Amino acid sequence: MRRIALLIAGGRGERFWPKSRYHLPKQFLSLTGPKPLIKLTYERLKGFIEHQDIWIIVPEDLKPKLKKILPRVKIITEPEGRNTAPAIAYATLKLRKSYGDAVMFVLPADHWVYRRDKFLKILSIAYQHALGGSLVTLGIKPTRPDTGYGYIQVDGRVGGNAYRVLKFKEKPDLETARHYLEIGGFYWNSGIFIWRIDRILEEFRRHMPKMMSRLEEFIRSKKKELYHKLPSISIDYGIMEKASDVVMIEANFEWDDLGTWNALARHLKTDPSGNVRVGRVCLSDSKNSIFYSDHGLIAALGVEDMIVVRTEDAVLVCPRSKANEVKTLIKKLRKEER
Amino acid sequence: MRRIALLIAGGRGERFWPKSRYHLPKQFLSLTGPKPLIKLTYERLKGFIEHQDIWIIVPEDLKPKLKKILPRVKIITEPEGRNTAPAIAYATLKLRKSYGDAVMFVLPADHWVYRRDKFLKILSIAYQHALGGSLVTLGIKPTRPDTGYGYIQVDGRVGGNAYRVLKFKEKPDLETARHYLEIGGFYWNSGIFIWRIDRILEEFRRHMPKMMSRLEEFIRSKKKELYHKLPSISIDYGIMEKASDVVMIEANFEWDDLGTWNALARHLKTDPSGNVRVGRVCLSDSKNSIFYSDHGLIAALGVEDMIVVRTEDAVLVCPRSKANEVKTLIKKLRKEER
Repeated sequence: MRRIALLIAGGRGERFWPKSRYHLPKQFLSLTGPKPLIKLTYERLKGFIEHQDIWIIVPEDLKPKLKKILPRVKIITEPEGRNTAPAIAYATLKLRKSYGDAVMFVLPADHWVYRRDKFLKILSIAYQHALGGSLVTLGIKPTRPDTGYGYIQVDGRVGGNAYRVLKFKEKPDLETARHYLEIGGFYWNSGIFIWRIDRILEEFRRHMPKMMSRLEEFIRSKKKELYHKLPSISIDYGIMEKASDVVMIEANFEWDDLGTWNALARHLKTDPSGNVRVGRVCLSDSKNSIFYSDHGLIAALGVEDMIVVRTEDAVLVCPRSKANEVKTLIKKLRKEER
Repeated sequence: MRRIALLIAGGRGERFWPKSRYHLPKQFLSLTGPKPLIKLTYERLKGFIEHQDIWIIVPEDLKPKLKKILPRVKIITEPEGRNTAPAIAYATLKLRKSYGDAVMFVLPADHWVYRRDKFLKILSIAYQHALGGSLVTLGIKPTRPDTGYGYIQVDGRVGGNAYRVLKFKEKPDLETARHYLEIGGFYWNSGIFIWRIDRILEEFRRHMPKMMSRLEEFIRSKKKELYHKLPSISIDYGIMEKASDVVMIEANFEWDDLGTWNALARHLKTDPSGNVRVGRVCLSDSKNSIFYSDHGLIAALGVEDMIVVRTEDAVLVCPRSKANEVKTLIKKLRKEER
């Protein structure tokens, strides 16, 4: 059966503020090297999915940026940011029209993956399970009690590295995350899903029938307010938790959702003092810090465990331990500037 | 006897880097309010010294900036930065030609003074002592064991608030500074001097005869290399330490040489969390820090006891406790960029 991909590029990823902005979210940034994350995600599928079968769902205002990076990519416009369940359902209805049934690979456009060979091998395994009718998700074996990820709890092997999913867990606190690692059977939720179009539509119609009828009306009428009224709910909680025959494949590639400046630092080279330096940076007596400039010089003296980011119009300074709270700061900033 | 002023504006004050630069030193910055420090120093003398008798000694490259700020000021060009003894001797020889003998007020152009009335009253007292033939300096009663200032040790009152000077002390370490405060008789060295032209020339000729003959030859011949060969020595150690009849007036005005970002913070308003904010600054959960932006936004989260300065082309981040070491960082920067 034909393979098609749907890359989700609707995130507004402000955790990399001031580098990422509402109108320049994470997926469009070149954080880990010269290529934007969305291009890396696209190219990662090379040889596995035909380029003409790779689709990206993206908000209207981000389309020009996307076209610059990937001029030939197929685009579905996300009418409004209403989380992943409406976005995926909407895109799936559109793809159903073009393709009939097919196996669909749903991938966040802004994640980091190391070892493309392993990644594609896992996708092949997932493809087989999806062909058989399962809703498949990829789980990453946790290497630390990370509180920045959602977790998937499994309760039994269904063969090979595939497990039956018991529960999707939201981002835990540190104690809970430690407990997960201790008792085992918990995986990081990668946000990657593989299923047949007809199977997922069946589940959408069963568990979110109201949303589906509104979506179909929206597609017929193009009335924006119909989409606006859809519930803002993730695919995990809207569908995956309730669906039958949900299978998780244990992924053995290195993966990161690049959720914070700290996450990024894990994938960049550090100097002998443990500093990550991007751009023009001059340091004296500083360690374990992240210095990221795309405009002008950062000079630091005696700085430890800090994040310093300089862009053309802003500077962020915060301890690494507070990287998760950058969103709070942006909220405050918006309020103050209003 | 006529009063004339000589403002010393040769400093390259990089302690306020990146706000101050080699070609934009401290005296030209508006740090404490809308006016540049050099203009404040000039205007502080209003009514006490005639404007046509206020001279500024300044390096060639800074003359255009000076003329913008003070279009009508009298300028003596400093041939090369060789510290205060050569600069003052050179200027004094020039002024002797224009004025004959006179009482000369030598003032750093980049200090902060609060209470102009008290300041001028002290200058009047100093004038009387200078008329009588003393070399006069102003000492500030220390309010804390500051290691950023030189100290003057006195050993006996010669009348009123005037003391006989025993010794000029370089910047002490903290223990020594504490000891000074404990035993008393130590004052901060303001770098302000008052004397009759003929008296100081007499001392220059006695204690630095070689420098004086070279200077006179330089004035005749205009050969730059003669000035270049002068010793780089301060007036304190070249003359004041050795001269006879040196008197210190205890000054009762608030004074600061604005030697570091911390010093500046002492004279700016703080918010309820003890932060100094200049320019566009957004803070969350931050305290006792200095945020200074003259270009773009500084956003900080969870920052304590830090200095963050943003200019068009650079950012400085360092703990307040390291403000004195900014020069080290600049040296490193110069080396790296070469």
